[in-house]
Amino acid sequence: MADKLIIFDTTLRDGEQSPGASMTKEEKIRIAKALERMKVDVIEAGFAASSNGDFDAIHTIAGLIKDSTICSLARANDKDIQRAADALKPADHFRIHTFIATSALHMEKKLRMSADQVYEQARLATRFARKFTDDVEFSPEDGSRSDLDFLCRVLEAVIDEGATIINIPDTVGYAVPEGYGNLIKTIRERVPNSDKAVWSVHCHDDLGMAVANSLAGVHIGGARQIECTINGLGERAGNTALEEVVMAMKTRKDYYGLELGIDTTHIVPTSKLVSQITGFVVQPNKAVVGANAFAHASGIHQDGVLKARDTYEIMRAEDVGWSTNKIVLGKLSGRNAFKQRLEDLGVTLESETDVNAAFVRFKELADRKSEIFDEDIMAIVSEESAEMQAKETFRFVSLAQHSETGEQPHARVVFAVDGIEVQGEARGNGPVDATLVAIESKVSSGAELVLYSVNAITTGTQAQGEVTVRLSKSGRIVNGVGTDPDIVAASAKAYLAALNKLHSKVEKLNPQLS
Amino acid sequence: MADKLIIFDTTLRDGEQSPGASMTKEEKIRIAKALERMKVDVIEAGFAASSNGDFDAIHTIAGLIKDSTICSLARANDKDIQRAADALKPADHFRIHTFIATSALHMEKKLRMSADQVYEQARLATRFARKFTDDVEFSPEDGSRSDLDFLCRVLEAVIDEGATIINIPDTVGYAVPEGYGNLIKTIRERVPNSDKAVWSVHCHDDLGMAVANSLAGVHIGGARQIECTINGLGERAGNTALEEVVMAMKTRKDYYGLELGIDTTHIVPTSKLVSQITGFVVQPNKAVVGANAFAHASGIHQDGVLKARDTYEIMRAEDVGWSTNKIVLGKLSGRNAFKQRLEDLGVTLESETDVNAAFVRFKELADRKSEIFDEDIMAIVSEESAEMQAKETFRFVSLAQHSETGEQPHARVVFAVDGIEVQGEARGNGPVDATLVAIESKVSSGAELVLYSVNAITTGTQAQGEVTVRLSKSGRIVNGVGTDPDIVAASAKAYLAALNKLHSKVEKLNPQLS
Repeated sequence: MADKLIIFDTTLRDGEQSPGASMTKEEKIRIAKALERMKVDVIEAGFAASSNGDFDAIHTIAGLIKDSTICSLARANDKDIQRAADALKPADHFRIHTFIATSALHMEKKLRMSADQVYEQARLATRFARKFTDDVEFSPEDGSRSDLDFLCRVLEAVIDEGATIINIPDTVGYAVPEGYGNLIKTIRERVPNSDKAVWSVHCHDDLGMAVANSLAGVHIGGARQIECTINGLGERAGNTALEEVVMAMKTRKDYYGLELGIDTTHIVPTSKLVSQITGFVVQPNKAVVGANAFAHASGIHQDGVLKARDTYEIMRAEDVGWSTNKIVLGKLSGRNAFKQRLEDLGVTLESETDVNAAFVRFKELADRKSEIFDEDIMAIVSEESAEMQAKETFRFVSLAQHSETGEQPHARVVFAVDGIEVQGEARGNGPVDATLVAIESKVSSGAELVLYSVNAITTGTQAQGEVTVRLSKSGRIVNGVGTDPDIVAASAKAYLAALNKLHSKVEKLNPQLS
Repeated sequence: MADKLIIFDTTLRDGEQSPGASMTKEEKIRIAKALERMKVDVIEAGFAASSNGDFDAIHTIAGLIKDSTICSLARANDKDIQRAADALKPADHFRIHTFIATSALHMEKKLRMSADQVYEQARLATRFARKFTDDVEFSPEDGSRSDLDFLCRVLEAVIDEGATIINIPDTVGYAVPEGYGNLIKTIRERVPNSDKAVWSVHCHDDLGMAVANSLAGVHIGGARQIECTINGLGERAGNTALEEVVMAMKTRKDYYGLELGIDTTHIVPTSKLVSQITGFVVQPNKAVVGANAFAHASGIHQDGVLKARDTYEIMRAEDVGWSTNKIVLGKLSGRNAFKQRLEDLGVTLESETDVNAAFVRFKELADRKSEIFDEDIMAIVSEESAEMQAKETFRFVSLAQHSETGEQPHARVVFAVDGIEVQGEARGNGPVDATLVAIESKVSSGAELVLYSVNAITTGTQAQGEVTVRLSKSGRIVNGVGTDPDIVAASAKAYLAALNKLHSKVEKLNPQLS
């Protein structure tokens, strides 16, 4: 067994399955590039058969990413696998990840299939997937709650058919470390051809133990792949957090003794990118990527820390990519300085036209805000990419709003609908309410506002507000993000961004693996 | 060994030590009452010797809480212990928790003491603490990195002196589950009188394993007390999250086999209370208390969940206190209905005058917002308590603000300084910036704005905005929270609340235990 650990990131597949975390193709590409820079071994880019949008995103990412293996999920049937193979075709290295549930509960209640039918389908699917690639992963869904004898029989069969990676998901986050580690150890001991596959763990954090379970799967069970997501994004309490599992492995190399290919200095920028795109905040007391995770990063220099850094710090903030805000550009900065800064930040815009458009926005912002930080530049680029999308129906034009204690707040919003300007006017409980009601007065989307939050992008009163709006309509949930130094204008932009997402009707299957 | 597990909550002590999480006495009392309702066994209410404010808060809580044991931290010296005993005097049941570092690194670099000096001080401190109570806890700080022989020698001595609880902190969050569990097992085997004490675990989440480490300490090590905080609040990545460790114990009772006294239906309301008071957001994908933690609580009814609930849910949302927002009161609700609702929510106001004041605010809000939710009522009471505090220097009176695309936003704020009204006026990048600059133009606090965030208290465009402002000045960090349907007015209130906290100059020691 190699002593290298494979990091398999599923932010774009299992992470995106989280209600409210759906991403556009542009957003997925930006995250995939960040994962490649971080030297993630495998990027699960989506579930090709679930929607044309997912297929398209995987296909594009497969063509752009060269250093990481690109993977698509597929149910254990020929149609799904063919679709995955088609989407992955442009990739230098690709993997097909097929799955079927093996627990009695799931086979009976969800699949309505007998154990023998599941066994046969797993074999056939693996055999079919091998026609396209010699990198085939198989997952028995709800593996940790499956009958052990049956599970081993299925796994032996799929390894015989050529599956090279066997992943044991703890789909509902029910496992405890010792139990999960021993389960993998037992399975590997009982499956006669287990040495022909690399074993993988996939855990969920419902009981707060996803990281410990994954590490036990590796340390006790002998797994050599961990499936995880940035910020632990994912359904319910989410998946194993990449940043935690990677830093635990690195910090306790004395105990785990495995090699990792990850460039950890990209962890914090990638965490911020995923948080910004999904609108899922990272709590301050989150390990590794939370604002307070490192004492000195939060501006505090305590007695103990000053006397000897080792007394309270087991990791260095620089090693995971924390850096203090620096004023990088201002009103007088030129196009070259701006372009250089984009490159330093690892942002690649598709064409010179895109750079020019972003530069125009930068100049507009610099007129209103004297100090431009890296985070501001990231926000400009983020908005730029969102607007570059063809399907944009609604576009913000201008806003006037007023509130005064004792009067009802008032807002007037001008925005374009398919290029034609309309003006909505309304009163509301507050200026944000008035603004959103003004937009709705012309749009009548009927969507329900289920979340509204604002975070300042940088510190100081001059900071831009980044507003996240989450809308729900007919069971679909979308997020819109808007940035502006004016928080009310940012709210209008975020609301229009969410409406654009709702408008691009994507029908998507949700297979519910892990 | 009893098979009951003791839950020791240190939200008010270790949690409050987190930069930006400092609380007023009023806020601490509200949290203590919520913890008592939840049937937490021990509440560590503070560190009496660290400041007069902490002493006062412990003293008041000790007089109010009847069902939980109240505890104060104390360094291992007579002065600290005397101070703890004095603060705890009003309590029915109280505990003194004394500590000293035992790792070579901490003894040399922080304490500048020899091992023998530390040994002697630990003995004497325990002996002195026993003069006041027979419930004495001893913690060897940085225990998980201490020399084992020395650690066992110290622990044997303090048990001889009468320490009844021995707590082994993993101060820097460096431990892994198996290692930490075995450490506690080994110590208990090697300390000859270990059966005379109850053993306790105290873990930090720097590597994402605080919960698993705590449970390993119990399961492998035989500990019978877990120290934890609501939402995992605490320095850096925080402490073991109470909600996770409790629900893991309950959900996997088949594995852990221990009894718990906790009423889990109070978990979510208490989580929300702590988040609201500290301004520390809970991320949506946080286990148990995150907005997405339960699929159906986030408004999603997926295929699998509908077919059979057990397929994807291992806990029930109701069991941890999730309930959907209900319109509970409106414009026409009377004082009795309001008072009844307060009681249902577990809120006890000190006097009828306080109820009247809260009711006036409720009526004001109901004039501006047609649907009043439980969360709105909690916000009213929260603000009410904050304002009842004697030390309030700054008080919001009124605001007028205007912003329009292409013009510089403008704000005029009227507020009282020690009862005298002043008016500040300013322009800024956005209406919030203009508002804060307008306040600063009259106050000149020189504080730096390090965090600004907004969360809507309920869903829908009519929601009130809850703004958190974090200010930093000369190494002190304070949070201010303000609520209003007008987000700009809420920002002004939050800023003034933070200024009030900065103004009440509290000098506080930070002992850095655990």
